[in-house]
Amino acid sequence: MKKVLLLTQMIIFGLFLIFTASVASAKDATVAPCIECHNEVSPGIVKQWQESGHSKAGVLCYACHEAKENDPSGFEHEGYKVTAVVSPNYCSSCHPRAVKEFKESMHDEAGLFSLSAYGVVEGEEVVGNVTFGQTKNYKTHFSRESAEGGCLDCHGTVIKVGKDGTLINWPNVGIGRFNPDGSVGSCSVCHTRHVFSVAQARKPETCGNCHLGPDHPQREIYEESKHGNLVAANGEDYNWTAPAGQWGPEDVEAPTCAVCHMSGFGGAVKSTHNVSARLKWELEPVFSWPTEQKYQAGKEKYPIPPKIAQRYEKIHNLPAGSLKEVPTGGPNPFATAKKFAPDVYKAYVGPGKWWEKGETRLDAFGGEALRSPDAKREDMVAVCTQCHSESWASGDLAKSDAVIDVYNAVVLAIKKKYYDPIKKEKLDEGVKFNGKSEADNLWHEIWHHEGRIWRMGGFMQGQDWQHWEGAYEVADDGSHMADIYEKLKLRKAVKEKLGLK
Amino acid sequence: MKKVLLLTQMIIFGLFLIFTASVASAKDATVAPCIECHNEVSPGIVKQWQESGHSKAGVLCYACHEAKENDPSGFEHEGYKVTAVVSPNYCSSCHPRAVKEFKESMHDEAGLFSLSAYGVVEGEEVVGNVTFGQTKNYKTHFSRESAEGGCLDCHGTVIKVGKDGTLINWPNVGIGRFNPDGSVGSCSVCHTRHVFSVAQARKPETCGNCHLGPDHPQREIYEESKHGNLVAANGEDYNWTAPAGQWGPEDVEAPTCAVCHMSGFGGAVKSTHNVSARLKWELEPVFSWPTEQKYQAGKEKYPIPPKIAQRYEKIHNLPAGSLKEVPTGGPNPFATAKKFAPDVYKAYVGPGKWWEKGETRLDAFGGEALRSPDAKREDMVAVCTQCHSESWASGDLAKSDAVIDVYNAVVLAIKKKYYDPIKKEKLDEGVKFNGKSEADNLWHEIWHHEGRIWRMGGFMQGQDWQHWEGAYEVADDGSHMADIYEKLKLRKAVKEKLGLK
Amino acid sequence: MKKVLLLTQMIIFGLFLIFTASVASAKDATVAPCIECHNEVSPGIVKQWQESGHSKAGVLCYACHEAKENDPSGFEHEGYKVTAVVSPNYCSSCHPRAVKEFKESMHDEAGLFSLSAYGVVEGEEVVGNVTFGQTKNYKTHFSRESAEGGCLDCHGTVIKVGKDGTLINWPNVGIGRFNPDGSVGSCSVCHTRHVFSVAQARKPETCGNCHLGPDHPQREIYEESKHGNLVAANGEDYNWTAPAGQWGPEDVEAPTCAVCHMSGFGGAVKSTHNVSARLKWELEPVFSWPTEQKYQAGKEKYPIPPKIAQRYEKIHNLPAGSLKEVPTGGPNPFATAKKFAPDVYKAYVGPGKWWEKGETRLDAFGGEALRSPDAKREDMVAVCTQCHSESWASGDLAKSDAVIDVYNAVVLAIKKKYYDPIKKEKLDEGVKFNGKSEADNLWHEIWHHEGRIWRMGGFMQGQDWQHWEGAYEVADDGSHMADIYEKLKLRKAVKEKLGLK
Repeated sequence: MKKVLLLTQMIIFGLFLIFTASVASAKDATVAPCIECHNEVSPGIVKQWQESGHSKAGVLCYACHEAKENDPSGFEHEGYKVTAVVSPNYCSSCHPRAVKEFKESMHDEAGLFSLSAYGVVEGEEVVGNVTFGQTKNYKTHFSRESAEGGCLDCHGTVIKVGKDGTLINWPNVGIGRFNPDGSVGSCSVCHTRHVFSVAQARKPETCGNCHLGPDHPQREIYEESKHGNLVAANGEDYNWTAPAGQWGPEDVEAPTCAVCHMSGFGGAVKSTHNVSARLKWELEPVFSWPTEQKYQAGKEKYPIPPKIAQRYEKIHNLPAGSLKEVPTGGPNPFATAKKFAPDVYKAYVGPGKWWEKGETRLDAFGGEALRSPDAKREDMVAVCTQCHSESWASGDLAKSDAVIDVYNAVVLAIKKKYYDPIKKEKLDEGVKFNGKSEADNLWHEIWHHEGRIWRMGGFMQGQDWQHWEGAYEVADDGSHMADIYEKLKLRKAVKEKLGLK
Repeated sequence: MKKVLLLTQMIIFGLFLIFTASVASAKDATVAPCIECHNEVSPGIVKQWQESGHSKAGVLCYACHEAKENDPSGFEHEGYKVTAVVSPNYCSSCHPRAVKEFKESMHDEAGLFSLSAYGVVEGEEVVGNVTFGQTKNYKTHFSRESAEGGCLDCHGTVIKVGKDGTLINWPNVGIGRFNPDGSVGSCSVCHTRHVFSVAQARKPETCGNCHLGPDHPQREIYEESKHGNLVAANGEDYNWTAPAGQWGPEDVEAPTCAVCHMSGFGGAVKSTHNVSARLKWELEPVFSWPTEQKYQAGKEKYPIPPKIAQRYEKIHNLPAGSLKEVPTGGPNPFATAKKFAPDVYKAYVGPGKWWEKGETRLDAFGGEALRSPDAKREDMVAVCTQCHSESWASGDLAKSDAVIDVYNAVVLAIKKKYYDPIKKEKLDEGVKFNGKSEADNLWHEIWHHEGRIWRMGGFMQGQDWQHWEGAYEVADDGSHMADIYEKLKLRKAVKEKLGLK
Repeated sequence: MKKVLLLTQMIIFGLFLIFTASVASAKDATVAPCIECHNEVSPGIVKQWQESGHSKAGVLCYACHEAKENDPSGFEHEGYKVTAVVSPNYCSSCHPRAVKEFKESMHDEAGLFSLSAYGVVEGEEVVGNVTFGQTKNYKTHFSRESAEGGCLDCHGTVIKVGKDGTLINWPNVGIGRFNPDGSVGSCSVCHTRHVFSVAQARKPETCGNCHLGPDHPQREIYEESKHGNLVAANGEDYNWTAPAGQWGPEDVEAPTCAVCHMSGFGGAVKSTHNVSARLKWELEPVFSWPTEQKYQAGKEKYPIPPKIAQRYEKIHNLPAGSLKEVPTGGPNPFATAKKFAPDVYKAYVGPGKWWEKGETRLDAFGGEALRSPDAKREDMVAVCTQCHSESWASGDLAKSDAVIDVYNAVVLAIKKKYYDPIKKEKLDEGVKFNGKSEADNLWHEIWHHEGRIWRMGGFMQGQDWQHWEGAYEVADDGSHMADIYEKLKLRKAVKEKLGLK
């Protein structure tokens, strides 16, 4: 392992030497003062950099930290103009393809969901209690104070520069962070500073830093899966340091997140920083549909196979045709941003801005994002078949596809039979907390937590997650929703009958 | 570590060379074509095999994949008759003792719980919505589409061969899989193909691939325990590759699942693939009793110690004698299979079949399974005392035994006081979802989730799991069950009084 | 790594040789018989000791296991007077500073919370069903039988010596264990016998052995954080064996629990075994306040910032001033012990006893515990700035401080608006289980589980835990509490109106 590491480092070193020779020579004079002082005040940073590929290739502090001319986050520091917010624009100088691919991925829109957190900042003052596209009158305790270390730690804040040069909504390394230089994102959330280790970025804990918990437990599902099981058991013997684009089945016995979603894996497919490039389905909305333009726009509904639809209509005593199809589209974070945080929208969307066009997600991302769901699936299967037969891989994914159909039918049944009537008859108006009734929160958990677990568990071989934390929990919460409907109806009837308030 | 590994590999290599010399020579001609082609289409498999003990011992592809004559899964492939379903019958050719021990373990019956999943397949068509021994009229969304990637991924499917030779209910590596050749099980679920690493099989993640989640979180409990804590902290320095039967306290500082439940651990006891061989208690049914024939049959009840019974009768205001004893027996998966999936039952149970006799579990397994609970406990203590004093080990297990008595009393109290009356008075008939009422699901979670956690946490030093996820949750759900009973009674009375529906 | 390990071991070896030369020589005669016999009956222990620093320094069995004269746990064993309960008093002979620092930490009072478990033992007989300072009439199934393997496994039991010399409430290594020799604590819970590895004690799993689960999931929060993510990904390459007091940023890329809470980390601050020394806040009580004497005593209330108080008064329609401040103080385990387990209190508190004085926690611990919250925070920031800029570290902690204010306001609102009225109007008297109503358990979970997660998640960069398992769950349970209040009021009104019981 040590030898492989050494060899790899030498190769990288060589490549970087050629590439950065001129850069390095120009900045040499600036190394000593940075290092000298920071070795005293923050020795950990210096030590991390010394272990990095950057260090070995002569990429010095100032190569990344020299503030660009139009970057409001730049400030004078010991005679140099530097920035602490090293954005994708900066990384792009040497890694343009990675940044372009990132820009085509769904990662790039994570910040849009947190956009309106900006809405609460007027100048440097918090003036409201608003997050996530909700109006300023929305009654919630998910305030910016709490959301900043919660949601926005992953999704990203809107970094502003205060009058005195201090950074507002900082520190933050959310993957969809809005940077003062007009860019979006943060490379260092996965490539942790100041080592920027490719090995670390390939390990499951890195993705699992954000992809875990009740609303998207990919980390837990992966750890349960045979793939995760193998990496946990033997990963210490894998070769994690193969150069980018050269990692393959000869290096690892079982895949991590990066293998299936990013790596070329021995040339099976094009390697990419677009983590969405091989995803056939939308697994996060209320209902699921293929990642196609026509469904994304919400103009067309997505069908449930008749046999499955009819089965669940019968089980739940719903009229024929009730479960024919699910609604698609949205939420469209670009529209939300336009409405609730127009100044941020304007700063980042438009000609010459980060997003040239921002009507819908696929629209804004274009490129790879517009490929057909089947083409995306083909790429995934190409990775699988490096270690599995084609029939095994396709068979397993076909099982997962069928889970989507069942999910769509069951959750639509809950909605039509219980939740819609509760809302239509306004049965839950009287008893809310934090702006939500029991029924509201339950419905949210059914699709946003348990429903995603059911669907994601299905695709990543997390059997326990799929069943007990997913399908079973939806069934249990279906029984709760049924009882809430019964309770609220009876409560209303009794109050009317007895003249109680 | 590298040296130990090398030495071990050399020893294994030597042993295998002697054993497999003739086999290898006969098949040599078949290596080249398998490897040559699969190195192109699925290089990961080839690389895994190259790292395996099999490879080093000259055990080539065809030694395992040559279809036996009477195996319907065999098919012509490039001039050879091969199978993808390498069942325990195949592994038994070289590893007969391991397969025999597996057959005597509870692992071997995992598939019986999923047997009726077969019931939904007529020819190659799904015709119903039935799983787990439930009738075809049972209203549930735990359909085969969802169950296959959920429950059956661990428990095993019934693999069928379609008219065109394609495998149905495939892929699957569930430990209780029904194979087309008349055998049950899948060795590769723990000995992951194609490395078949003994080191991996000894690591906790391997067992934790299935033994986790709300209904049997042995993985989480172990990870919490001091044992799991030590393995996580220092396991990378352990010797994981000692030859089978020679692993002991000189190799590992703390035990994994395999140490306590399978290993001879330095000669303390006989090593075994019967993972149930050292288990004194049934911890999975509604109530717990010793693993004895008389309780298994359900003809005799298991007593609760009078002091404990009386304490909880008093706490819960139950009549004296209410908590004298718990019912035993069942569920008997053999009886379930006989009733709901008779053709599968006939195919696998009977003279000359996989199970010679299948009236009850202990009956079917015989051998080691019939040893007394105390003899099983003795073996466990023999392992413990490799690192602990006898008084420490016995003291700790005595504490755990006492947890069972408290559990039995408390959960019986909930049943007698609340759940039985709800069902007897049919209070929950009106509001069900997926065939179950709130009360049904709650009762299920009390014994099947929280109750198991309470009991298993007690035996594996998972203090937090035992208390907060186990005992506390049972108490909390007891309060919910009490309230549901009150709610349903009142609901009924009010409706009657006011003439509401 | 091997070289570093070797060098470190040599240094430790040298130091110990000088220190223990006389000790070792005096006991040499006793080695052979201990080892000889225990190598047969418990070889794991011997092997562990052989790998220990103790072994290398010539610290033999009897150096630790020779019973002190006044220790009732001592017994004759093969001609030697030994004890199995090697208490902090014993460790203190060679490690006096560590024991002193432990004594000043909150770890030292963990046993006080389990003190009354002693109350159930009269002589050697369990006579009641009492735990945790509750009266003997308290109706609960958290009996000693269950609590011993649950709560007390971490908190510690009261070890008693029976008439025949057998140890009662044993085995136990809870960190706040009451030892027969009059001391409190158990060093081996973190420094696992018999290796006593500094590397293991520095790894996150060690602290996570107790600090996990719904009521204090520091382990899970850490594993989610970027810090935990890095250690999981690359920790195998860190230097874990630097001598005590010499561990620093050159050894590890990211911190474990021990780095932030104990290590001097490259001289940034004084290293300590007082794990509370850098904690500004009380995060475990119902509400949070700074770790100051005046709040601990409960005589002064802690304010909520007016802007935040007013925001939540408005959101929850509470009268102005409702959320002005939170109550402080308690629970005071010394007072609880005095009342419910007076004999244990007397045995351990008083002049010449383990605690000289035991009116309140800070009072009893004195020393470092009495430093101002700001001084504690300064120490923490000093550790952070070994790898982060001061503005980054302070900015991040300021975000966390703000979470406390929001938490205090939101949970006080739930209490004032729903839970207090339920209790005041005695609405939940009729339907209890295990001594608690649904509302009681819900309130308990709001502050004791979800509320701690919200607060702890905020401070340890566990974004998902902070939001989804913390803040969101409090919101959801707020909606449940609101509904319970509505339900119980209506239930009462309907019963009165209709003359139902």
